[in-house]
Amino acid sequence: MPNNLIEITPSAYDYPLLIRHLLDTPLARSPDQVIVYREHRHTYRQFRHRLGSLASALTDLGVKAGDVVAVLEWDSHRYHECYFAIPMMGAVLQTANIALPPEQLLYTLNETGASTLLLNVDFLPLIEPLASRLPNVTRFILLNDRPELPATTLPVAGEYEALIESGSPFFVFPDFDERTRATTFHTTGTTGQPKGVYFSHRQIVLHVLATLVDIGVATAQGRVHRDDVYMPMTPMFHVHSWGVPYSATLIGLKQVYAGRYAPDVFLRLIRDEGVTFTTCVPTILQMLLNAPGSEGVDLSKLKMIVGGAALPRPLVKAALERGIDVCAAYGQSEACPTLTIMHLSTAQTTGDADTEVELRIKPGYAPPLMELRVVDSDMRDVAHDGKATGEIVARAPWLATGYLNDPKASERLWAGRYLHTGDVGSIDLDGALHITDRLKDIIKSGGEWISSIDLEDIILRLEGVTRAAVIGIHDDKWGERPLVLVHLLPEFKGSIGRDEIRAHVKRSVEKGLISKFAMPDRVEFVDALPLTSVGKIDKKKLRAEYRVQLPAGHMPAAAE
Amino acid sequence: MPNNLIEITPSAYDYPLLIRHLLDTPLARSPDQVIVYREHRHTYRQFRHRLGSLASALTDLGVKAGDVVAVLEWDSHRYHECYFAIPMMGAVLQTANIALPPEQLLYTLNETGASTLLLNVDFLPLIEPLASRLPNVTRFILLNDRPELPATTLPVAGEYEALIESGSPFFVFPDFDERTRATTFHTTGTTGQPKGVYFSHRQIVLHVLATLVDIGVATAQGRVHRDDVYMPMTPMFHVHSWGVPYSATLIGLKQVYAGRYAPDVFLRLIRDEGVTFTTCVPTILQMLLNAPGSEGVDLSKLKMIVGGAALPRPLVKAALERGIDVCAAYGQSEACPTLTIMHLSTAQTTGDADTEVELRIKPGYAPPLMELRVVDSDMRDVAHDGKATGEIVARAPWLATGYLNDPKASERLWAGRYLHTGDVGSIDLDGALHITDRLKDIIKSGGEWISSIDLEDIILRLEGVTRAAVIGIHDDKWGERPLVLVHLLPEFKGSIGRDEIRAHVKRSVEKGLISKFAMPDRVEFVDALPLTSVGKIDKKKLRAEYRVQLPAGHMPAAAE
Repeated sequence: MPNNLIEITPSAYDYPLLIRHLLDTPLARSPDQVIVYREHRHTYRQFRHRLGSLASALTDLGVKAGDVVAVLEWDSHRYHECYFAIPMMGAVLQTANIALPPEQLLYTLNETGASTLLLNVDFLPLIEPLASRLPNVTRFILLNDRPELPATTLPVAGEYEALIESGSPFFVFPDFDERTRATTFHTTGTTGQPKGVYFSHRQIVLHVLATLVDIGVATAQGRVHRDDVYMPMTPMFHVHSWGVPYSATLIGLKQVYAGRYAPDVFLRLIRDEGVTFTTCVPTILQMLLNAPGSEGVDLSKLKMIVGGAALPRPLVKAALERGIDVCAAYGQSEACPTLTIMHLSTAQTTGDADTEVELRIKPGYAPPLMELRVVDSDMRDVAHDGKATGEIVARAPWLATGYLNDPKASERLWAGRYLHTGDVGSIDLDGALHITDRLKDIIKSGGEWISSIDLEDIILRLEGVTRAAVIGIHDDKWGERPLVLVHLLPEFKGSIGRDEIRAHVKRSVEKGLISKFAMPDRVEFVDALPLTSVGKIDKKKLRAEYRVQLPAGHMPAAAE
Repeated sequence: MPNNLIEITPSAYDYPLLIRHLLDTPLARSPDQVIVYREHRHTYRQFRHRLGSLASALTDLGVKAGDVVAVLEWDSHRYHECYFAIPMMGAVLQTANIALPPEQLLYTLNETGASTLLLNVDFLPLIEPLASRLPNVTRFILLNDRPELPATTLPVAGEYEALIESGSPFFVFPDFDERTRATTFHTTGTTGQPKGVYFSHRQIVLHVLATLVDIGVATAQGRVHRDDVYMPMTPMFHVHSWGVPYSATLIGLKQVYAGRYAPDVFLRLIRDEGVTFTTCVPTILQMLLNAPGSEGVDLSKLKMIVGGAALPRPLVKAALERGIDVCAAYGQSEACPTLTIMHLSTAQTTGDADTEVELRIKPGYAPPLMELRVVDSDMRDVAHDGKATGEIVARAPWLATGYLNDPKASERLWAGRYLHTGDVGSIDLDGALHITDRLKDIIKSGGEWISSIDLEDIILRLEGVTRAAVIGIHDDKWGERPLVLVHLLPEFKGSIGRDEIRAHVKRSVEKGLISKFAMPDRVEFVDALPLTSVGKIDKKKLRAEYRVQLPAGHMPAAAE
């Protein structure tokens, strides 16, 4: 639009939205607050000095603005420092996925063209055999918690602490365009090769502000505030641990990093460091509650945002019994990752317990500046009645602008000027989202759509069922039919069989909770379900394993 | 800095920070929440329709992107609608100051080149005589609360409600550059002609986000949250009522607009509408507490941010006795307006009452994304020890980029790449600001700097003193000497005289609270102190009135 009043910003007062600027507030207000990892307890003041030293040392090694610097590391204060120092130099932080198979990891490092790799010595056995196939990596830097630095065949450019020792804390971080790429990583994708996404300084800063406004003003109790102690239980390689390390730093929280993921470590840190705020996937929450000694740790001060997968009701009940303030959230790598967060008002936490559980498992509400829609295939809004379903699409200033080196997939991602989540859902009258399924997990059976999530949810309500996975398998007559995989508590192994599961689903069909077409033909009991590197049930693997065709013409069970 | 990874934003996913985007959240989550003015109770859904209709009607009248649309109005739902609809069209909202003398008002309307003027019919007697000297104004639109539209000599283009009736709610608000000018207004400046400032969509949106993060996460109690009811007691023409109508809309609060400023109206609305959150200057708080019937209204749910002038201790005590959660803030027109906001932790509100008052009167802390410094004349930081003073300068993405049509003053405002507040202060170790004085209110006496605010503050601590103003008046020997103007409670008029004031200041000198050079030579008792249009003591007027020279060689009192 022509407009004669657009400001041209000369350098005097231009203020780009840079990650660097997230530091002004904590340095002024919480300079003595600490960031904890094992025996390290650095104040924010020391943290800032270490950022300068790290950037100075990396610059001396030849790292320049625009270079990609990859990190392979457990959750640590060092990783937290890399979140800031590397983008603040104008370089790009690649948070490499430590859980990927070696060939995929290699693919991701080569795709970004990372020229520097910071790796924990624990990953030397993984990287040494790959080094000759990483032609772009010219600098290997070791991160080490052991008494001695292990020997390696890699041409090492330096050790992290020694570099910080050698660098100057007075390194001056430059100003640059806020749309400069800050981070890159690969989605753990349930299909095909990992897909690279990338975020700018502007996107990260706006994601921090919008989600903090959302969480900050959500409830009268103050869902997150300056007295909180933050520890992530979502890995730092995964979408910047949902962006919370950036947010926690902005508001000057005490931060605790746990290293490797083990429930006993989490429990000890929650107790010893007074952790009050965390994020995780359902699997981790389950592990935390079931771990030996869990009962002996007071979890009643814990506020927890759970995402990555649907939050099962029994898990919420178990968490509430321990006093945990647990709510669902919904996001994805392409969304930096926040799409919605659930919050309960004071009134909602003092009413009926079952109603409260129903609310807590909702994906919740879009944060400020996000326009969330549920649309049909012509991009028309479906009714906001909590029933009509369609694809969830969104606009917000922090959504990935595309995939690395894949303009076609980027174009599909942004078809019709909205980011396509690939998820199917509905919206309530009050704006709360309900997710029905992944578009690709929807089971298309004889013209009917069966939601695998709804069916899993129903099966999970049966006492004794701890996990359930529903996948569509090919059927000559119906196209697809649901296959149910069930994991039971040991004491229920004799008493729950295929018939009990089917009878339970049938009751739900009779109550109108789900279509009769969802009645499963096949039910299998399994001892374990495969998980992705971020703890979700790996449906891609299940589909490969169970891609068995039903006999042609077999009738759907509910129609029998 | 050269960088090959700056994103060029194609239209598909570009998301400019526009005021329009503040509406997504409330419309999704609080569509039935209301905005109240007199008998009008519009839901957010209706509000959004009215914005479309207003923009559509203004477009039909010829208003285009880039045009300046001025508003002369009491605080109302209509004004709130103009805050959104006018900038959302790409036009510029001029919030004209209803309290300016006619000649200054004329000056401000002509300086912006406003071509449309929306005016409340109450201002017809003011505008009619000026109309011939407003050559740019081609459209006069009337805002009316009376049963009948009064006759006028103005060529009226329409009446507000009739325009909304005629417009289409489905008007499509366009996308444009986030640096497009959204608002303009004039500082009430204590010197010279009013100075025009202006703010872009980007600046307003970032001010909203940063201040909401600050207030949202400030305390465990949740200082502001979705259950609050907001009513401004700062006029809407004054720096967008501190930006809070934008913030309150983003988080979907019930909002109440009071019309004319009268304590009985405020009190009635606080009671009847359940107001819990407000902003005001000290004068208004004083009026609220002293108004007839005030004691009968429960103010204990009220959270209040007080700015515009130093917050006197006795006023804080009186407010606390009524249960009001009152804290200071500090800002100015050039800062959109927020520079700092005070918050108390739970611990700080449960300790010693006097200590609590001392904390509540502090200007407080800079919000996220603001870099606040106190510097000497060479722009070097003074020590953060709560003692060393210098000029307060700042950077943040919402600070005014300059003055309208005054490049020289703009350059001075941004000397050294920081906005110069013209205020003198110090910073504590924990980042809290203390304001010593306005640079221009500092009294320079024989090489010593005397803070007029410190001296006023000391005099205000004497029981019976309700207001005090200190100005510097010319002195041949010392350059300047302080003159004290005192307003007493009626019952103290006999017992407090010049000697009592001087003896009180002397005790403070002896306690080391203020330099002996601050001992006032002249003390005058007044029945009233002149106020500016936004309720601050008008020192410009006082200086003009009292510009009397002391006899040459008169000794400073403390040195006698």
